[in-house]
Order: sequence, then structure tokens, then C-alpha cells
Amino acid sequence: MSHEPFHGVFPYLVSPIHESGAVKRDVLARLCRDLIEAGVHGLTPLGSTGEFAYLTWEQKRDVVETVVEAAGGRVPVIAGVAATTIAEAERQAGTFEQMGCDGILAIMEAYFPVGDDGTFDYFKAIADAVSLPVVLYTNPNFQRSDLTLPVIARLAAIENVRYLKDASSNTGRLLSIIDRVGDRLQVFSASAHIPACVMLIGGVGWMAGPACLAPARSVALYELCRQGEWDRAMTAQRELWALNQAFAAYNLAACVKGGLELLGYDVGGPLPPQAPLPDHGREALRDTLRRLGALEEMAAD
Amino acid sequence: MSHEPFHGVFPYLVSPIHESGAVKRDVLARLCRDLIEAGVHGLTPLGSTGEFAYLTWEQKRDVVETVVEAAGGRVPVIAGVAATTIAEAERQAGTFEQMGCDGILAIMEAYFPVGDDGTFDYFKAIADAVSLPVVLYTNPNFQRSDLTLPVIARLAAIENVRYLKDASSNTGRLLSIIDRVGDRLQVFSASAHIPACVMLIGGVGWMAGPACLAPARSVALYELCRQGEWDRAMTAQRELWALNQAFAAYNLAACVKGGLELLGYDVGGPLPPQAPLPDHGREALRDTLRRLGALEEMAAD
Amino acid sequence: MSHEPFHGVFPYLVSPIHESGAVKRDVLARLCRDLIEAGVHGLTPLGSTGEFAYLTWEQKRDVVETVVEAAGGRVPVIAGVAATTIAEAERQAGTFEQMGCDGILAIMEAYFPVGDDGTFDYFKAIADAVSLPVVLYTNPNFQRSDLTLPVIARLAAIENVRYLKDASSNTGRLLSIIDRVGDRLQVFSASAHIPACVMLIGGVGWMAGPACLAPARSVALYELCRQGEWDRAMTAQRELWALNQAFAAYNLAACVKGGLELLGYDVGGPLPPQAPLPDHGREALRDTLRRLGALEEMAAD
Amino acid sequence: MSHEPFHGVFPYLVSPIHESGAVKRDVLARLCRDLIEAGVHGLTPLGSTGEFAYLTWEQKRDVVETVVEAAGGRVPVIAGVAATTIAEAERQAGTFEQMGCDGILAIMEAYFPVGDDGTFDYFKAIADAVSLPVVLYTNPNFQRSDLTLPVIARLAAIENVRYLKDASSNTGRLLSIIDRVGDRLQVFSASAHIPACVMLIGGVGWMAGPACLAPARSVALYELCRQGEWDRAMTAQRELWALNQAFAAYNLAACVKGGLELLGYDVGGPLPPQAPLPDHGREALRDTLRRLGALEEMAAD
Repeated sequence: MSHEPFHGVFPYLVSPIHESGAVKRDVLARLCRDLIEAGVHGLTPLGSTGEFAYLTWEQKRDVVETVVEAAGGRVPVIAGVAATTIAEAERQAGTFEQMGCDGILAIMEAYFPVGDDGTFDYFKAIADAVSLPVVLYTNPNFQRSDLTLPVIARLAAIENVRYLKDASSNTGRLLSIIDRVGDRLQVFSASAHIPACVMLIGGVGWMAGPACLAPARSVALYELCRQGEWDRAMTAQRELWALNQAFAAYNLAACVKGGLELLGYDVGGPLPPQAPLPDHGREALRDTLRRLGALEEMAAD
Repeated sequence: MSHEPFHGVFPYLVSPIHESGAVKRDVLARLCRDLIEAGVHGLTPLGSTGEFAYLTWEQKRDVVETVVEAAGGRVPVIAGVAATTIAEAERQAGTFEQMGCDGILAIMEAYFPVGDDGTFDYFKAIADAVSLPVVLYTNPNFQRSDLTLPVIARLAAIENVRYLKDASSNTGRLLSIIDRVGDRLQVFSASAHIPACVMLIGGVGWMAGPACLAPARSVALYELCRQGEWDRAMTAQRELWALNQAFAAYNLAACVKGGLELLGYDVGGPLPPQAPLPDHGREALRDTLRRLGALEEMAAD
Repeated sequence: MSHEPFHGVFPYLVSPIHESGAVKRDVLARLCRDLIEAGVHGLTPLGSTGEFAYLTWEQKRDVVETVVEAAGGRVPVIAGVAATTIAEAERQAGTFEQMGCDGILAIMEAYFPVGDDGTFDYFKAIADAVSLPVVLYTNPNFQRSDLTLPVIARLAAIENVRYLKDASSNTGRLLSIIDRVGDRLQVFSASAHIPACVMLIGGVGWMAGPACLAPARSVALYELCRQGEWDRAMTAQRELWALNQAFAAYNLAACVKGGLELLGYDVGGPLPPQAPLPDHGREALRDTLRRLGALEEMAAD
Repeated sequence: MSHEPFHGVFPYLVSPIHESGAVKRDVLARLCRDLIEAGVHGLTPLGSTGEFAYLTWEQKRDVVETVVEAAGGRVPVIAGVAATTIAEAERQAGTFEQMGCDGILAIMEAYFPVGDDGTFDYFKAIADAVSLPVVLYTNPNFQRSDLTLPVIARLAAIENVRYLKDASSNTGRLLSIIDRVGDRLQVFSASAHIPACVMLIGGVGWMAGPACLAPARSVALYELCRQGEWDRAMTAQRELWALNQAFAAYNLAACVKGGLELLGYDVGGPLPPQAPLPDHGREALRDTLRRLGALEEMAAD
């Protein structure tokens, strides 16, 4: 836990899966090493970008094992735990701790809506199941039950619940959360927010898929924000925002995987029946990456 | 496949799970036998009511095994296959066929939205993976990607895609489906529709959780519809509708499980963090069951 | 009020507006006379199909005046009152009573959401402002605030609140309403429901735009339902349903106006910026009207 | 048009209406004068906060007349035009220009959804109907048809379409708009965004109801942003954000009117059936205003 407090740029890793169903460990390991060398502050397997909702347990376990090994303790690994039941979430979280992860990104899936008490119980159970720090994940666009401010406040009182990552596009909501529990929870941005804005209002970094494609530039943006160089930060942010726009237009996993293929990583497409990035999306992304110098950045890596 | 064509009342079975995580096989088996003796035409494990979204694979397999054994070939068993990926759906469907199921209820889960082609691919892959008849399941309230009429029409051309069960509350949509593919697909109602109305417009029965609580009355309603005794059917329907109203007000699994507990089946509550039926819900349900004579119906069983 | 109790087929009339903004009184009057001769049981100006949300007060007043004159007391006229404020709704309702209408179709518009008490107050104020019978209009698809069952039950206790017209597509909701207040409120269907189903569960007729295009067939369907000839009714219903399907695919006003143009009524298109029925929609509608014999029905009129 | 380019703090004015339906001209005029003395850069009658959707045309006209007179040319007045039809929007805009307004805030209302072409036509017609600069208003939360990026880009090519005010809570969307048409359209924030963030990414000010309650502090925040004093700006922003949080919890008009009543303006409640600010809302707002020093600020006025 020497990595705490967590801060900075945490790319959401994709999950490269062979047609046979096997995890492409070598591709994933190389991506992890390259990202670390580009300066990222941590790695987050099994987020939305990592297709947590599409993987078998064996695939999830292999992904996490590969990332922990590739990180080799240089940066923290925060693995996504996602389930509809408390029992399954506890099992995943406990296993990831044993496998050497440094933190848990806690995600609640649901089929029937869950009330505030059930939501609290779910996240508390994960925190109780591990000794690791827990990042609350809230994404009103994809999840059926969202974390309300009162539930977040109750969860913030738990000792190892220390971070929150919000994937809504409502930046004002983040300011309200920081107002209320900012002394106990550190807030990370997601790709639906403008990272520079979240840093301005008190955030500590971002967890996002696009950071896989432009890690060095993302880190540079983070440093400008930390130094309070807001105008220079906005110049950097404007250039990077083109990536986020591409991501808003397509399936997130398809987009990051498509971009990584352009950068020479043989990660394949998203798991069927998800569609791979269409041709016009790939061309738009190639243009964006070229303008960002990312094609060269990784090529020279 | 001598059970085909499927028709009539198919209760959605609950999944009784012990605190240890084990399936309560004896409770589930007794429920199946009682329902068959009450005259139901088939059994459907692993629907929404059966908490398919909350069970581990081991639990799902044990549920299906128990139901197939309890049915003993007297009525068909149509098991729910639900997954986000094609690979996992194929695996589930193949296993259920080997275990002796008579049909597959095909459900698509999704995290990112899926287009029409991906939706078609998913359901076609299930149909190709088995020799059993397939029931398309469409539920716009709970699933992220719905079956559109054009996709339904394409799927209806597949030889073993023979039924559709619609869980929207839009009965007009069912008439549009029957208009378009009624010669190739037989349509089942769900608890969100009025079964007598769906029968009037050409349906062949219903798959629904409430039928677990009033099986004999459900079968009587079905028979009145088949005989074209529409006015008498509506009298029976009005009495039974009180059950559906209760179900619309609470979590479906919590409600059927709560009702079965009242009827003497030790099925437990829905899996946490889902909340069990609250006290006021249980009292409302008890009143409804008493008015329906269901408390006596099962007690005398 | 000798027309009460209201029942049967009430076409929602379109509002034909000249480019100058003037109501095309002669076109509207001819449509009213033709519909009455085809046997409809009443006329409803200023519903959704009548573009109530797009007309100035002067246009609304001219539409109602034209319809009342054309009806000449032969069938009841139920005019739509729609407003965001109580004061405006009272003013409209009072004026329509003075102009000779036989009933008020009460519609609540909203910009900010309104709670149950505000919703009750709005509809009660309309009922208090007139001595005419009031039809509650509920349309969860287009209005921001819907009538909940508890509010409907409170409103049903008001002496001149006697009818409800539901424009959701949820037919089960209608059965729940009939269960609860069916002794005090008579229920009309809308084009989103299957009229034969609503009649089966206890409805008294339907208010719908498509009835403008096939009035005689609509009346014939109504008579079959009244006589309990459900199987023959369904045959008639299946043929007519093609019209409702066309309406679900396009802007309602554009569709009925487009269909009336095909039948020789110079009603024009919907008010801009609404788009007129596109070419492929017009062709689909022409085919449907031809199959229904409506092109001939009106031509021979 | 010497007031252009518009920039800074534009409070959305409430519409104080007497029970008789008359506009309380003296109350509104005093509010306008006080806001101008507190330093606001312009006035915007007939926004959402101004209950444009609840007023008769006579009330709207009286509101605008009062505000134009009270402004006396010291600050620009940008009046809200809102309609479902092009004809009505043109009429309103033309009248407001004749009455001496300095700009038009263009709002599209809709009942049936409108496509991109209809949306473009609507806003273009307003721009063509006046010689004043036009502010595009986009509010996906309340309007049925939203301005998409492609439509915004087409509209930006019109000479007098010069500003955009976005009332979504999606700040990233604003950065995408600025990226695409920032050279031709100036962007204003709304109360759902964090104004300091919108200023950071290139905005020119904000139009918002809360600015009625803390005008001097809002202006001070604006000045800090203009000077690039981002850290001091955030300190000021955090204090002011409590007001926006109150507004997110209640009906916007009820909240600003309730706050103004606390500050000694007899503006009354929102028009029925809208509910006035409830007691707990008033107390929460009083606390917030006290912490902001607003109670004293206005008292000393």
C-alpha cells in the first residue's frame, strides 16, 4: 500500500482475447510495460473499457494476473470487481487481493433496480472483504442503480473506502460530491468529463480508456494541472479532447481496441456480438492519433 | 420434442438458494411437481423471476438439473440462456440440451448497446448451437438492446426459432409481430400483458412468474380462452390480474418468492443485495392470494 | 348532455390551417359531416392529432366553433383543453362550454415536473370550471407529468369527471384503472392500444386519429365488440391495425393529415417546423388505405 | 448593438405575477435595477426561470417591456423566444426587437419530436426575422428535440447567430462545441454547469437563475476567471455552488422566487399548479444565502 494515496493517470486497460477464448498475455503485458514507461501512475484492468461485463471468471483472473506481473510493483494495480450479488463480489475482491492487487475498483451490476440500502450493503461488503483501498465506481449511463450522494456519504465513513471515480458526464455532480465528502474521498475523473476541469475543482487524476492511446501526453496534462498551469493545461487538454470525442461516438472497448491496433498492439476486437470499430471510425481515430503524434509516440517507444 | 408445439401456461420458476449458495433442490422439486399436478403445460427455469442475472453457473446448472428431473418428461422444460457474449450463450445452450431440456429461452444481456446485426448474430448462434426449439425473449424494460421487428423477421426464418415471448407492456407490439411473422413464430405473453388479451389476438399461452402462485386458476383461464369463452375468460382474468398488479409494484423475484413462502414453500428471499418483499407487500400479497383461494388451493395440495 | 353516456368511436380531428394561419373551415366542416355520416359517435377536436400544442388561441377557437356547427347536435363534441397553468385551462374550458361543446378532454402540459397534488389541482380546476362531463387524458409518452392511479382515484370522486382516455401503450394499466375506479370512470382507448382488447376488458370506445381515415370500418369493429362477437371483431381489428402501425412510425398529425390528403381532403401538412409525411410514408399509407377499401369508401361518399 | 459582444453574468429573471394575472411591474423593475447596480452584465427575461412556458402572451410582453425600461440601455436585454411553431416564434422575435431588446434567446418547444432539418429551420427563421444577435438555447433535460452538433455547426454559419447557451449538465459537450464552432459562436454556461469550468474551457459568461440571488459575488467570480486567477476563482466558485445545488433539488422557478422572497422581493410563487418552494427548501436556501452573505448584501442595497 506504499502506492497510496493514488493519484494521476490510470489507463483503463483493454482485455485482448484470442479467438480460442484465451487471454493474449504477451500483448497485454507489453501494453502494460509501455504505459508504465510512458509515465502512467497506475493500471486499471477490468473497467468498462476492459469489457468486465463480457469476460468469464477465468479470463478475468488471467487478465489481472498478467497485469500484476507486468506492473511488477512499479505502479499500483486497481482491479475491477463487478457483480450482481454480494457473494460473488466478495469472492472476486478477495481473490484479487490474494493475487497482489493494490486496490479494488468496485462496480455494481444490477438487473432489477436496487434501493439505497442494497447499494450501500453491496459496496460495504466489498470493503469489508479486503484490506485494500476501494474506489467507488459510479456510472449512471450504464448501470441500473446509481450511487446517490447520501449513499456516497455513508460509504465514505468506511475506513478503506477512499476514492471515487465518476463516469457520468455531469461535472457539477463531482463538485457536489467534493463539497460533501472531499475530505474523506479523493475523486478521479473518467473519459466523459474534461480531466482538466475535474483537476481544477479538486480531483486527483483520471481513470480512462483513452489514456491507453496517448499516455505520455496524458501524463504531461496531469503535470500541468498539478502545477496550476491552467492555461497551458487547457491547450494540452484541447488537443487530447479529440480522443474523448471519438470515444463518445463509438462503443468504448471497440474504440480503444481499434486505436491500439493502429498503434501496433494485436489486441483484436471487442468480444462478439459487439461490433468492431467500423471503417469510418478507424479512419477518424487514425487522423486524431496522427494529429496527437501518438502514432509516432508509440512507434518510437 | 413430442411436447411441441409448446402452448399454455409456463410458470417462471424461482431459484431457491441456501445461504451457503447451494440450490435448495428439494424445495424446487416439490414446487415443480405441485405445478405439474395443478395442470401447467411446461416449466421455465432461469427467467427474470428465476434471477438468471444473479446466479453462478454452478447454481444455474443445478437448477436446471433439478427441474428436468422433477418434470420427468411429463411437461416440457424450457431453460433460460442469458449472456453478453456469443461464446458463453452457445456453451450454456449446448449444456442445457445435453441435460435434457426441451427448449431454450434465449435472452441477450448487454452492457454496451448492440446493433441489429449483433443482435441477430447472438440469437442465431444460440439456434445453431442446439437442435432444440428456441423461444426469443424480448424485454425492453430490463435489457439494453431490444429485438426490433426487422430482426425478429430475420430470426423467424431460422428453422428452430419457433416462439417469441414478449415482456414489454405494449400489447399492440405483439399484434404487429403476429401480423408480420405469426405464421412462423408462436407468441407467448408475459406478466406485463393481460394474458386474455394476448390469447384474443392470437397468442398461444403465457410464461410468467405469477403462475407459480395460482397455477390451477391460470390453467382454467387458459382453457376458457382456448374455447373462445371470452366473457367468462375476462371474469377469471380480472380476479387473477390482482396478482400481476402486485408484481408490477415490487421486484419480481422478491414478489414470487414472498408469495411462495406464504404458500408454504421455503424458497427464501432474492439474492442480496436485492431486498426481500417488504412487510406491506407481503400483506397485500396475502390478501390477494386469499381472495384468489390460492392459500387454500396449495394448502389442500 | 343528452349525448351521455359517451361511448363508441370518437375520431381525433386534424386542424387544417391555411398558410396565412387561418383555419380552413370548409375542409374541416366537410370532414366532420362525412365522419358523422359514416356513423362515428362523437368528434374530438384539439387532441394530439389536432396539434393542440401548435395552435394559437384564435386557431383553437375557430376549430372548435367549426366543429360544433358542423356537428349540429347530431353527435357530441368533446374539445381538448391543454395548458401549463390552471388559469389558462379554466379560461379555455369555460369558453368551450359557452361555445356549445358537450364535453371537455382535459390535458395537462408541463415544463417542470408537477407532483401528484398539483396534477390533482389542475384537473379538478377544469372540472369545477364547467358543468360539462370531463374526460381525463393521460399520455405518458408525450406529457412530462402523468396521472398516477392514486390521483385518478381522487379525481374519479368528482361528480363531472366521468371518463378517462389513456394514450399509453400499456393495456394492463387500463385493466388496473378499471379494477380500481371502473364503477365511476368509463375508459376510452387510444391508437396505441388495440381497441378490441380495450373493449374486451371493459372499455366503452376509443378516441383516435386513425378513425378519421376508416370511420365506417371503425364503427363496424365497435359494433362487433359490443355484441360480444370477439372472433369476428379480431378479424376486423387485424385489418385495421395496419393503420395504427403506420401511425406508430410517423408523427401522428403528419400521418393523419397525409392520409386525409390521399382521401381528397385538402387539410395540408402539420404546422412547421414539423415535417410532412415523407414519400415512403405516404406510399405505405396509400397501400394500407387501399387494402382497407378506404380510398373507395370515401370516394363513394 | 453597442453592447456586443455579450459576455459576463446574465441573471435569468423571474416573472412576478399578481393573483389577478397582472405582471408586478414595480417588483420586477426594482429587481432589475438592483441587479444592474450589483454589476451584472445583462438581463435575460423569459428563460426557464422566467417561466416562459407558463405565461400568456400579454404577460410575456409586459415582462419584456418592464425589463427594457428598467435597463434603460445600461446593460443589454436578451429576451426569450419560445414556441412550437415557426410562425409564432417569428412573431415573438419581431415584437421583442421592436420593443427595444438587444438580443434574442431562441428556445424551441416541441410536442412531437422534430428532426434535424426542422430544428435548423426553426432557429434560422428566428434569426431571419430580426436584425438582433441570436443566442441558441439548448436544454436536453426539458426540451423534446435537442440541437445536435451538426445542426449547431449549420446554424453558426448564419451571420447573426453568435452565441450559444447550453443548459445540459454535460460540460464535455461544451468543449466539443467550442472545438467545432468556437470561432463563430461564443458560449455561455447555465446553472447546471460549473461556471468556472466553462470559463476555463473558453466560455464567455453564464446565464443562470441563481445569479439573481448573489449578483455581486457572481460578478466577482466572473472577474477572477477573466483574469486567469483560477485558484481564487475556484474558492469563490465553491461557495457559490451551494446555490446551484439547491436549484438542482427543486423546481427552478420555485427556488429563485423563494430565494428572492427571502431577500425582500415580493415576487410570489411559481404559477399554479406548480408548487411553491417547500418549507425545508426555504430553510436550506436561507442557510445558503446567509453563508453567502447574500441576505446582508441585498439588505444593505
